[in-house]
Amino acid sequence: MVSHPIRIGLLGCGNVGAAFAALVAQRADAIESLTGLQLRIARVAVRSVSRDRGIAFAPGVLTHDTAAVVSDPAVDVVIETMGGIEPARTLILEALKAGKPVITANKELLANVGPELYRAAEAAGVDLLFEAAVGGGIPIIRPLRESLKGERIKRVMGIVNGTTNYILTRMTESGASYHDALAEAQSLGYAERDPTADVEGYDAGAKAAILATIAFGAAVAAGDVYREGIAGVNDTDIAFAARLGYRIKLLAIADQYDDGSIGVRVHPAMVPVDHPLASVRDSYNAVFVEGEAVGNLMFYGRGAGGNPTASAVLGDTIDAAANLRSGTAASLGTLQPVRIRPIDDVESEYYLQLEVADQPGVLARVAQVFGAHGVSIRSMEQDGLGDRARIIFITHTAREADVQATLNELRQLEAVRQINGLLRVIANGS
Amino acid sequence: MVSHPIRIGLLGCGNVGAAFAALVAQRADAIESLTGLQLRIARVAVRSVSRDRGIAFAPGVLTHDTAAVVSDPAVDVVIETMGGIEPARTLILEALKAGKPVITANKELLANVGPELYRAAEAAGVDLLFEAAVGGGIPIIRPLRESLKGERIKRVMGIVNGTTNYILTRMTESGASYHDALAEAQSLGYAERDPTADVEGYDAGAKAAILATIAFGAAVAAGDVYREGIAGVNDTDIAFAARLGYRIKLLAIADQYDDGSIGVRVHPAMVPVDHPLASVRDSYNAVFVEGEAVGNLMFYGRGAGGNPTASAVLGDTIDAAANLRSGTAASLGTLQPVRIRPIDDVESEYYLQLEVADQPGVLARVAQVFGAHGVSIRSMEQDGLGDRARIIFITHTAREADVQATLNELRQLEAVRQINGLLRVIANGS
Repeated sequence: MVSHPIRIGLLGCGNVGAAFAALVAQRADAIESLTGLQLRIARVAVRSVSRDRGIAFAPGVLTHDTAAVVSDPAVDVVIETMGGIEPARTLILEALKAGKPVITANKELLANVGPELYRAAEAAGVDLLFEAAVGGGIPIIRPLRESLKGERIKRVMGIVNGTTNYILTRMTESGASYHDALAEAQSLGYAERDPTADVEGYDAGAKAAILATIAFGAAVAAGDVYREGIAGVNDTDIAFAARLGYRIKLLAIADQYDDGSIGVRVHPAMVPVDHPLASVRDSYNAVFVEGEAVGNLMFYGRGAGGNPTASAVLGDTIDAAANLRSGTAASLGTLQPVRIRPIDDVESEYYLQLEVADQPGVLARVAQVFGAHGVSIRSMEQDGLGDRARIIFITHTAREADVQATLNELRQLEAVRQINGLLRVIANGS
Repeated sequence: MVSHPIRIGLLGCGNVGAAFAALVAQRADAIESLTGLQLRIARVAVRSVSRDRGIAFAPGVLTHDTAAVVSDPAVDVVIETMGGIEPARTLILEALKAGKPVITANKELLANVGPELYRAAEAAGVDLLFEAAVGGGIPIIRPLRESLKGERIKRVMGIVNGTTNYILTRMTESGASYHDALAEAQSLGYAERDPTADVEGYDAGAKAAILATIAFGAAVAAGDVYREGIAGVNDTDIAFAARLGYRIKLLAIADQYDDGSIGVRVHPAMVPVDHPLASVRDSYNAVFVEGEAVGNLMFYGRGAGGNPTASAVLGDTIDAAANLRSGTAASLGTLQPVRIRPIDDVESEYYLQLEVADQPGVLARVAQVFGAHGVSIRSMEQDGLGDRARIIFITHTAREADVQATLNELRQLEAVRQINGLLRVIANGS
């Protein structure tokens, strides 16, 4: 096989970038003998040229100048691991315009200005690949883009944030409180000191937008995603979920409805214990896909970490390099404009936890409020708590707006002391 | 987008072929608007032209003549869903030689003469795609071929036969005997009247050979696979597995060792309950992949059935059609010759179930036999059974040859009445 040199320009050399450079050094010979592609890190743009990254770059490889890496005629493929929107966006557009394939792991960028970048790649006839942006090392973007291209996908539902999955797993398995589990995740390096992006669902929301875009061929942005985090999930919810045969997970859910509209949301949900997503523990991620012909699929693995993410970037790099050699490029097709279904019109089953005065007739009054809003109750359990009682409801499928109206009216009942938990319930067998 | 007609020649129109033709009819418009590829079934070779398949083919589409479909200048892509080795092999070689991409779901063919076909495709510069041959609708071949091309894969371990997984699930969850569970699988259409290919592991063995070939880039054939079926798994093994925190699954395991040799085997095994494969129930399939950088991955879904399999064939068809349009083809690279590690040299933990005379000193004599062969015992449990006792051993990691030598010597001990179960145990955390 004739060797074909591929010179890589790397933008950013943090956790993922450094792991990628190390992986290329380690695997280059094997890749060359398998594919004839001779991968080499030609230029690396970094903030600090002098910092030790544990990798010996040749003199002249490291630079401060990101734009120079992109425009360098000795760079064939550009890999962006800087994060953030600017200057990543401008650099990627420049690279694509220059006919250089781009690989990025930057979910924030794609969830905000993805369609602009996809169009630029399409116009230039150049690859823009981003397997690492969702689910770290898990091959999910490529299966959705390629293997399932002919499939009518109805739903993509994933555990796409490892930090929150770790916290919820600890709460479930060791009975830790939310705050203790978060502190543990922080001490292990799974959660940032400021955990907002993870626990409030922003990270999962960006990934949900990307998954919806790829699964449905529609331009969905982070701002289209309804979002609730896990800070409101308490020990009682966790315990009741277990008692009722569920586990609580932070899910990113993208649905395409029969009218073509798309609903995308991130929130904690009760998942039946025998659903494959319920077994996804600790910081693992998984994406569950429901297709019309293919049925249910799940893709499971490490959703973060330098090495798994670098592995996904490397897979994309080999693909882009092979396409570059043969003069082709992957295509996302034309993204369709799409109507986003507001959360009020989304349907689900619901779990509600109320504290009420322990008086005769309270349950009847509460039940009447549900009925008045057309929300039908599937099951109910009541526990005494001294002068109060705790009531747990699970509803049949109901519209979000009707459930919210029910809650609003319940709050006005004098006998209702507190409404603690509202969680969507994933139906069995889906 | 300019439309590009792709005329499909279909060899065989049974369960998968008919589901594929129906799926193409249903999805062709959506695929055209997404990709510009206009898929059309041009010719279909069938045994009986008059049989009703619930699909209205235009006059002249159906024919008895398989070779005429392949050579028809009005056929661009050939899809083989006939099964068996000949004439499928000859027809596929003809198609590749004529520059026509081939999609096949034929695991028997690939596991026996795959390398010949891969070489022919490589020589012709034409696609030979076979996502449907392993794991039905689950995208596993493409992720292994493409996403993980740069990854050093250490192990691929799968539940790749739905029939046996259904039987073992019934035995575990409802306490059914092997024979009752098999009869139930037969009545549901999950098992054939002659279930040999499934229950003796031949089907899983063919898939194991294909997985090993793709994962390790090495020519592995069905004959290289060590194989044991599930007929020897009994209620006691199932019950002990549950008690010890395991579930019994029929696994296809392909390992690449540090010396480059490859071991491929199919046998029932005890899987820890918190291993992702343990939650794969009923007739579902899943493939677990252990990579050096990417860590653990799992791909889960429907491993059989007309629609899921047709979905995988359709994904391959779109890919081959797009490659045909752009004048490229996927490549497996050059398959390396490889040393197959004999089962005797493979290491595992083991579960053993013995019935012994309930006399003083028996356990010491049995334990001494293990020790003499260097097999170290991790845990032991003993149950009284009247004048006999049942002893369950789980060993530390041991060589198969040493375990077999232990068994042979145990059989000669007068106090050992029966050796019932020998199962490999999948280590925790792998």
